[in-house]
Amino acid sequence: MTNEYIPQFTTIATVESPFPEKFGTPRQSLLVKDCVSTLRFAHPINADFFDGIDQFSHLWVVSVFHRHLADLGKPLKAKVHPPRLAGKALGVFATRSPHRPNPIGLSLVEFVELLPDGLVVRGLDLVDGTPVLDIKPYLVETESQSAAKAGWTANVAPSELQISWTESSLDQLGQLLGADKKATVEELIKLDPRPVCYRGSTNAPNPFTSEYGFFFDKTNICFAFTDQNTVEIIRIEARSGS
Amino acid sequence: MTNEYIPQFTTIATVESPFPEKFGTPRQSLLVKDCVSTLRFAHPINADFFDGIDQFSHLWVVSVFHRHLADLGKPLKAKVHPPRLAGKALGVFATRSPHRPNPIGLSLVEFVELLPDGLVVRGLDLVDGTPVLDIKPYLVETESQSAAKAGWTANVAPSELQISWTESSLDQLGQLLGADKKATVEELIKLDPRPVCYRGSTNAPNPFTSEYGFFFDKTNICFAFTDQNTVEIIRIEARSGS
Repeated sequence: MTNEYIPQFTTIATVESPFPEKFGTPRQSLLVKDCVSTLRFAHPINADFFDGIDQFSHLWVVSVFHRHLADLGKPLKAKVHPPRLAGKALGVFATRSPHRPNPIGLSLVEFVELLPDGLVVRGLDLVDGTPVLDIKPYLVETESQSAAKAGWTANVAPSELQISWTESSLDQLGQLLGADKKATVEELIKLDPRPVCYRGSTNAPNPFTSEYGFFFDKTNICFAFTDQNTVEIIRIEARSGS
Repeated sequence: MTNEYIPQFTTIATVESPFPEKFGTPRQSLLVKDCVSTLRFAHPINADFFDGIDQFSHLWVVSVFHRHLADLGKPLKAKVHPPRLAGKALGVFATRSPHRPNPIGLSLVEFVELLPDGLVVRGLDLVDGTPVLDIKPYLVETESQSAAKAGWTANVAPSELQISWTESSLDQLGQLLGADKKATVEELIKLDPRPVCYRGSTNAPNPFTSEYGFFFDKTNICFAFTDQNTVEIIRIEARSGS
């Protein structure tokens, strides 16, 4: 089989999300449900294309991992290191890693609202600017398989990170994001955005664990680990250029 | 946004399924679970790419609706008529119709076995020869949403077709497919492969409802509706060229 049957796909929408960078973006959809994103239509679109979509609570978003296109043309690695597996390697097709032969993303999200120029969803795990190829309804009858075997993802311990705020960072939260975003910020940090190699270990803490920052919406959220399981949010600052 | 971020995707595998034609192919995955298909790798592939995949019971198959590429370049219809909705039209993004701006398919299947040159799965809803773009593990923790609102698919009545066999068709089943395929053939027909316009109605049966045939594996399965809810399997014959 050649590639004669693979057409050049086109962008139907572009993601507008609170995640301007990969660092800090949730690694799966629906992990941080309160994060709202908009799929902004690439072209003025006939609302008829979406007739009936508001009857569904959940939708699939098929996207392109456009920040990983530099991989294309390079020899592809057969194994990847899922961040949740603390260094263990697995075959790329047994993971949802963006480093795949075809960098196609699949995200389950909650439907919020249809706008004249976009579709608002909750729980998306994509960087701002991600191109969207398709939107499909979730078919609960066949796609909710609660007895499915979870593979290696069943063995991943839930985050036990304890999170505290400095007094000033709480003030900054209220001023820059709104106090109602407190739980969302905590959920994002509980996912532990640090690359595996920066996590250190109980016995030999890595010197680079001192302070981290990730972009969320129009802010830079700075935090530090006070020990392996405790995080302090130090400050929230407006990010430059936003 | 232009399409600069959309790479030309490549075929990683090709579907070998018992469905040589669209007519008779299940319209969703996992509807006829006993149908086994093989995703035959396009190139000799390093088994490391699939390390860990056998830990999952369910996998996603991302494919191209290659029988619908003639649609591309034509003005796209905003609404489609899902076969299960008996003529009602819906926005294409509220359906899983293959007639989409980007003809990308998404099928949930059961993992069966990894071969040196292919991946065997159960429940695939794709025509033989379909190009595969990606294979991903099913993430049961977030992707099994049993309380999801099913939209229009919740209102679709299950098939109540009654199926009978002629004596000779049962003999032919045993000779050409094996008696163990009886339930699978019945399930396929219960899905009612007829296009909506050929289904007639109780009051005005359509003259074209007399006899149908669809290809399954190396056979042609011929059946007729004796009334709106009763089907008789008339004969199973070897299909030419197979």
